[in-house]
Amino acid sequence: IYFNSEIRQGISLYMSLRLRCSALVLLITLFCSSLFSQVKVENVRPYETIAKQIISKGLASGKAYELLHELTTKIGARLSGSPQAEKAVEWAKKTMEGFDFDNVRLEVVMVPRWVRGDVEECTVIYTSSIVTMPLTICALGGSINTPREGITAQVLEVQSFDQLKEMKAQAEGKIIFFNRPMDRSKINPGEAYGGAVNQRSQGAIEAATVGGVAALVRSMTMQIDDNPHTGAMHYNDTIPKVPTAAISTVAANTLSELLKKQKDLKVNLKLSCQTLPDVESANVIGELSGDEKPEEVILIGGHLDSWDKGQGAHDDGAGCVQAIEALRLMKELGLKPKRTIRAVMFMNEENGLQGAKAYASKKRPGEKHIAAIESDAGGFTPKGFGVQADSLIVDRIAKWSYLLEPIDADRIRRGGGGADIGELGRQGVPALGLRVDGQKYFDYHHSDNDTIDKVHERELQLGAIAMAILSYVLAEEGL
Amino acid sequence: IYFNSEIRQGISLYMSLRLRCSALVLLITLFCSSLFSQVKVENVRPYETIAKQIISKGLASGKAYELLHELTTKIGARLSGSPQAEKAVEWAKKTMEGFDFDNVRLEVVMVPRWVRGDVEECTVIYTSSIVTMPLTICALGGSINTPREGITAQVLEVQSFDQLKEMKAQAEGKIIFFNRPMDRSKINPGEAYGGAVNQRSQGAIEAATVGGVAALVRSMTMQIDDNPHTGAMHYNDTIPKVPTAAISTVAANTLSELLKKQKDLKVNLKLSCQTLPDVESANVIGELSGDEKPEEVILIGGHLDSWDKGQGAHDDGAGCVQAIEALRLMKELGLKPKRTIRAVMFMNEENGLQGAKAYASKKRPGEKHIAAIESDAGGFTPKGFGVQADSLIVDRIAKWSYLLEPIDADRIRRGGGGADIGELGRQGVPALGLRVDGQKYFDYHHSDNDTIDKVHERELQLGAIAMAILSYVLAEEGL
Repeated sequence: IYFNSEIRQGISLYMSLRLRCSALVLLITLFCSSLFSQVKVENVRPYETIAKQIISKGLASGKAYELLHELTTKIGARLSGSPQAEKAVEWAKKTMEGFDFDNVRLEVVMVPRWVRGDVEECTVIYTSSIVTMPLTICALGGSINTPREGITAQVLEVQSFDQLKEMKAQAEGKIIFFNRPMDRSKINPGEAYGGAVNQRSQGAIEAATVGGVAALVRSMTMQIDDNPHTGAMHYNDTIPKVPTAAISTVAANTLSELLKKQKDLKVNLKLSCQTLPDVESANVIGELSGDEKPEEVILIGGHLDSWDKGQGAHDDGAGCVQAIEALRLMKELGLKPKRTIRAVMFMNEENGLQGAKAYASKKRPGEKHIAAIESDAGGFTPKGFGVQADSLIVDRIAKWSYLLEPIDADRIRRGGGGADIGELGRQGVPALGLRVDGQKYFDYHHSDNDTIDKVHERELQLGAIAMAILSYVLAEEGL
Repeated sequence: IYFNSEIRQGISLYMSLRLRCSALVLLITLFCSSLFSQVKVENVRPYETIAKQIISKGLASGKAYELLHELTTKIGARLSGSPQAEKAVEWAKKTMEGFDFDNVRLEVVMVPRWVRGDVEECTVIYTSSIVTMPLTICALGGSINTPREGITAQVLEVQSFDQLKEMKAQAEGKIIFFNRPMDRSKINPGEAYGGAVNQRSQGAIEAATVGGVAALVRSMTMQIDDNPHTGAMHYNDTIPKVPTAAISTVAANTLSELLKKQKDLKVNLKLSCQTLPDVESANVIGELSGDEKPEEVILIGGHLDSWDKGQGAHDDGAGCVQAIEALRLMKELGLKPKRTIRAVMFMNEENGLQGAKAYASKKRPGEKHIAAIESDAGGFTPKGFGVQADSLIVDRIAKWSYLLEPIDADRIRRGGGGADIGELGRQGVPALGLRVDGQKYFDYHHSDNDTIDKVHERELQLGAIAMAILSYVLAEEGL
């Protein structure tokens, strides 16, 4: 593409307009300059000028990427309770203090501490050969360890919990291999994820229920590669706990092929992960205090913790730096909102939501949350906002969509929200989630792939801009 | 993000609905099953079912990426007139024949043949030191060569043609260095490109006009890296021709810094590029012939040639494979459009538009083009279509936007089109360009970065799906 003809057309149009208009413009500027500028102002819809300033200033000199680069390369992955998570808390506080935000503070919260350990191995043992074959896995977050020598057992592959129940008779003593892929035909990868992730979150319980001794879960991604994707898994106190690992999609396909040829092959699974006692951590908070109604709060945020793979760049360093950047940008532009805009970096979204719960349950006398906006779908080009609220509220927010239209982020739809603001949502606070172009999200999510080089400076910045525009107009106008 | 609460809500909602509805559903299915299915059909808007089939089939088993992988890795870059371009012509024909398209053929066209040559060097020569410093450059497409020993001259840095004219007295005998960056504050990178690209396309003419001996042009990208970006440049027969090269943004910044310290440093520029005689090439065409009005044509396409850097993946292998994939998908679904849908892979978009001109000027008795749709903005997530036509036509196309809404590609706006279909547009054919999320486009454009690994399978496929849906409905309904 070289745009040449368009440029030529543009130039010739400009020249002809210039000739025709010059006399007219002279008259107008001489006799009616004040009237002319008034007419111009009236053509602008409310907040349109400010929104355009946020956009052009944000694109020209935004800092979201620079901040994310710092967080991901100086600190990196930051699982709740880890030393890196504590460094991230310090970094977020110091960063917001550096930008001179109001009321920068920590709100302490106890969080779980799960550690991966050094050993995670999965090996195929053939009945007919002394050759073995490694499969790439990683422990799922929360899993117990195996004995030091590992668990060696035959494998039962299933696509669903229903199928597992039907095959119950064959499950006893086996490693249950949940191998249902994410459904590629879904437009929204989040929906495909939603249709597969019960294997990860509930697989250990279902496996143990039918007498399985461990669980292997196909990684939650549509990519076919050798990166395992971790994530939260749960146990049920009334059912035995079994070790559970994610297996890369390449390894899952291989294992499935091998099982077709040799149903009785065995797999040895070794995990050294463990759960340590809870430790103290914190949500990190900074504000632009409201000029007229400081007690009314528009919350914007993301979660500061990540899984322990990659750098937690898209999930959810992006959301944190976007919240900081939105405030910074408003401050740089000299905007003084009527209501308080509060950036909250939640702790422990990934494996416990303790930060979210502590934030929502804390008594804040005299204070009222007008809305909460979370970015936790990756630092991709924004499309709009999903709103967890009744349709009346959705309509009231959607009336501002023209401010987001210039950056194509004006799709304001019912449904969405975010995990960290879910509890506020249940308390009746309108909870909004930034919607993004998420086709790549699960390529990176919870894996070694989630690194800063997968984030595009301008796409990330556009998300911060969208959050700044919407939070500012809500801080001015309420809901 | 782990979506857990949403999944739980979903499950409990499903269970409660299931309990409440089971009795009712039983009654309905027993007594009114035929009526019930009729009501369901009436709720669907025209073509909605077909559009959804195109989407889910396309996402589940699309071939756009596979095709682009073939084109880019087996053939790679394919500048007009090169042996690779001829291979690409063969590949496109064979691929469409392999899918059993109708009337697969070549339409022969003469194209220019410019070759880069082995030597492209740019070296800073300090007056005070025997040390020299290389700067990363590449010849602009169409440039003449330098003498074998290169051109050695002082450098005059300017930001604009106006500034160059003001500094005319200093320009004689110098290398003119056009260093105006793309404007980062623009939302649409294409607009920022449009505001900078005259330096590349017209810089040689402006430089020579004031007595300059060569031109260096800052690469057309917002990225700061060491990749030079080539592209078309023009000469004017009444003005001396001077050699012209693109300089990487890193090298441009370095040179600019050096000039601040030492205004009289010299640069040696060596280029061995040359223009050979025109050669024969071809546009490649394949169709799904119309069932009722085969003489009425909806054209979909891209351009098969690329620059000679990278692999021409986004520019514009993407558009070519999307056009092929759109037809393939319709064929796989058994769709038989009333009008003909014609995939055209144009030759020589980058440096001459000879394919576009030949296609538009060819007499096609009895035939009528209803619309032409080009994808040439990169294989990114589609946002909609830009329409070069009067607003009545735009409205008629926009009424189908609900078919594209499920994939968020429903922004149908006036303005746009494409270089290859520009001539058809001037003949009165509504010319549509696929609009995409183009924030990354100029990171890759015309450089070694434009390779298959920068293309995402599902984003590319969504563009093919958008083209299939729109071309199908226009083939059925006309305009």
